[in-house]
Amino acid sequence: MSALSSRIVSAQEAAAHIRHGDRAGMSGFTGAGYPKEVPGALAARAQEAHGRGEEFSIELWTGASTAPELDGVLAGASAVHKRLPFQSDPTMRDAINAGRVEYVDAHLSHAAQQAWFGFYGKLDVAVVEVAEVLPNGLLVPGSSVGNSKTWLDLADKVILEVNSWHPRAYEGFHDVYYGTRLPPRRTPLQLLDPMQRIGDPYLRVDPEKVVAVVETDAPDRNLPFKAADESSRAMADHVVDFLRHEINHGRLPKNLLPLQSGVGNIANAVMTNLAHSEFENLTAYTEVIQDGMLDLIDSGKLTAVSATSFSLSAEHAAHFNENIESYKGRILLRPQEISNHPEIIRRLGIIAINGMVEADIYGNVNSTHVLSSSIINGIGGSGDFARNAYLNFFVSPSTAKGGAISAIVPFASHIDHTEHDTQILVTEQGLADLRALSPRARARKIIEHCAHPDYRDRLQDYLNRAVAASPRGQHTPHLLREALSWHETYQQHGRM
Amino acid sequence: MSALSSRIVSAQEAAAHIRHGDRAGMSGFTGAGYPKEVPGALAARAQEAHGRGEEFSIELWTGASTAPELDGVLAGASAVHKRLPFQSDPTMRDAINAGRVEYVDAHLSHAAQQAWFGFYGKLDVAVVEVAEVLPNGLLVPGSSVGNSKTWLDLADKVILEVNSWHPRAYEGFHDVYYGTRLPPRRTPLQLLDPMQRIGDPYLRVDPEKVVAVVETDAPDRNLPFKAADESSRAMADHVVDFLRHEINHGRLPKNLLPLQSGVGNIANAVMTNLAHSEFENLTAYTEVIQDGMLDLIDSGKLTAVSATSFSLSAEHAAHFNENIESYKGRILLRPQEISNHPEIIRRLGIIAINGMVEADIYGNVNSTHVLSSSIINGIGGSGDFARNAYLNFFVSPSTAKGGAISAIVPFASHIDHTEHDTQILVTEQGLADLRALSPRARARKIIEHCAHPDYRDRLQDYLNRAVAASPRGQHTPHLLREALSWHETYQQHGRM
Repeated sequence: MSALSSRIVSAQEAAAHIRHGDRAGMSGFTGAGYPKEVPGALAARAQEAHGRGEEFSIELWTGASTAPELDGVLAGASAVHKRLPFQSDPTMRDAINAGRVEYVDAHLSHAAQQAWFGFYGKLDVAVVEVAEVLPNGLLVPGSSVGNSKTWLDLADKVILEVNSWHPRAYEGFHDVYYGTRLPPRRTPLQLLDPMQRIGDPYLRVDPEKVVAVVETDAPDRNLPFKAADESSRAMADHVVDFLRHEINHGRLPKNLLPLQSGVGNIANAVMTNLAHSEFENLTAYTEVIQDGMLDLIDSGKLTAVSATSFSLSAEHAAHFNENIESYKGRILLRPQEISNHPEIIRRLGIIAINGMVEADIYGNVNSTHVLSSSIINGIGGSGDFARNAYLNFFVSPSTAKGGAISAIVPFASHIDHTEHDTQILVTEQGLADLRALSPRARARKIIEHCAHPDYRDRLQDYLNRAVAASPRGQHTPHLLREALSWHETYQQHGRM
Repeated sequence: MSALSSRIVSAQEAAAHIRHGDRAGMSGFTGAGYPKEVPGALAARAQEAHGRGEEFSIELWTGASTAPELDGVLAGASAVHKRLPFQSDPTMRDAINAGRVEYVDAHLSHAAQQAWFGFYGKLDVAVVEVAEVLPNGLLVPGSSVGNSKTWLDLADKVILEVNSWHPRAYEGFHDVYYGTRLPPRRTPLQLLDPMQRIGDPYLRVDPEKVVAVVETDAPDRNLPFKAADESSRAMADHVVDFLRHEINHGRLPKNLLPLQSGVGNIANAVMTNLAHSEFENLTAYTEVIQDGMLDLIDSGKLTAVSATSFSLSAEHAAHFNENIESYKGRILLRPQEISNHPEIIRRLGIIAINGMVEADIYGNVNSTHVLSSSIINGIGGSGDFARNAYLNFFVSPSTAKGGAISAIVPFASHIDHTEHDTQILVTEQGLADLRALSPRARARKIIEHCAHPDYRDRLQDYLNRAVAASPRGQHTPHLLREALSWHETYQQHGRM
């Protein structure tokens, strides 16, 4: 990387370029491609400043969730006062729920453009991990793209981490679209299928802005792969059976439409299920490539995947890195404003599968909060995909905490996806196809097919009494006094 | 209209083609371009059947809201068992809220494609009003396009109403896009500015499917123009001042970006305000052209409007019809799947202004329901525009029913637009810019700037107590027992 080799410094020297109060845009998406060392050095700086009685904190923007070495260490050092657009780190989550960090939970397709619009203020510094800096100054991204392009373009100063853990053969796995413009000068995205290239294989950076380059050799966060449990397998069966049903009714082609699946066990189970199914020539247009999707590629069933990031177990990451050449031409990583773009999602006709925390009997979905007040992670890309999908599924076990919590409730304690956006709810109990149903008809179906038997009668009773109590409110009958009482009961007695 | 003149019959004869249980797709959007006579004849048929003790009802699809001669008369005759995707008729609303009609309240950009996908079932008959049938069989639409293209394409049988009240000069005012496809064969919409044509000036119909043509001469629904009251003018001032503020901060061009405004008094007041402002060369990419927007064209400030429909007072409709030639090249009516298309709304960077029923302190917006249970109209296009807009405003007086209801509440009793989608709330009290704010910061701003002084202290007290009660729930602090208590108090005592 001759072009920028004169800027190579230690992580500590690099972190010294970040000042108290700065807005910092860092790379990273679902624990992949985040800077490994500068955040830790920055956290140490903050702690030293705090030790001297000085204030030191930044506003932190990323692609999405990162890892203990970024969100964890900075939150642990009280070095972040504002965070966007997504996180899933336990320490950061605690800081948000304790009121110490302001969290802006945004659609992942909105973050880059709203930063460009100037809605978030000026970006002071970008900290971006790449696999390599080419002699001509172009950057080869590694295991995620996320918002790296936007942060590199917008920031006054740039710090690069060059992580030699990423194989050099990552070159050619990325498609970075440089055609975005501000309205009114935007033009159509000429993308017609998941593997089509509309951009460059490289990230660009103005070398004048690069204040530091840090060399690292560290793996992405390694989340162990959890084998699917019985409940996940049951949900995967419901989803795949329903896809067959739609093919049989002429509403889906035999090779389906491009798949999107959120992060988690159930999504992995669906992929595993598809790997052992009759389906062939599948494609995916998604955010994240998890173990299950890599297996589906290996099985030969999945021929093309567009994503913005990987999120692999240590074993699968090692497998991918060792066999990276064999995946070339079958995987493309794009900026998240493209992977999650409403225009593309609607055009391609995505089949979207995302987890949920709870759904109410009318199909409003909570993806983010526990008991109204506490955030878990954030909405991520679930809204981008659900709203614009051809078909969307929201999946969850019907109960949590050993049965103490029902995932189907009278009124969702927080709403991220409204009745207008949700189509198909799935629990291990069954599947409720809500398309073209009125709210009352939705309620009957959700209670019958998705609720756990332990809660079914009480949900039906709530619905019956709401109907009886609302002679002029039969569209979405509710009992205002009881609507949130299940959550309140749980709060007080540890059981709904 | 030589091509189809042999099919001219009475409305009664035409209505005889519609059977009990049929799905009927009718034209009409915000009281414009709906069939004037066949629905009434159909209602009479239904009543006769009911008099004989027979069942008779249909499933009714439209563009959006219609008028007493369609929704009103059919609901009054109990001739509809299911309705989508939008309505605003008092008789239909009563039937829905009494539980006699199943209502599917869908995003207006979703209806046409979901009908194509087969999610709503087979369409039996289309009843579409046009301005003229050309000798070659092409149809000149009138004052709305809505879903007419889709219903004409999908239905087994077609009934046309040719309404001579529409000026013949309507020819050339429409742009009907015939490039839609089912996934995976969709392609980009090559539309770059509001007045660009991407389609044909005519609707097409397979003449073999046309079972009846009815000649009519009747005006669209005439809603009297209500002059803006003090409250509406105050809200319009807040909106326009904020647009100036955004220009001054370099976040909007001097001629703004294309405007969308929902139906209603406040939207009209914003247009009137703009007509008396310094702004020039404005454009609009919207659903509906109301009186205020026509005035803005007449003022010379608004140079181009794309919409799917008019919604004018009798005076303004007469004015438009008399001077129609002068508007040519300045107005285009498109199918609602294009006027409301996420791809275009995001690309053009729309400034969206829509009404709301209530917002909660965290910025979740209710656009559709009263006290959780009763529907008012429906979400319409507000979700299409708000989610994909460059900037979105939600506007409402801070109180209703003479102060008995606060439009700002602890927890919205129904949620149509989530915290992730809403940007700027406006009441006559002021404006809350919620961009890039955490929920707690949003709450402080909404309470301070938007709530009515009579409710401000109680909202602040709710927030303070929720913060105190939720040491581990500081992201979106709520008191579950009280969250919906304001609505309950109103239900019981007639006052929040």
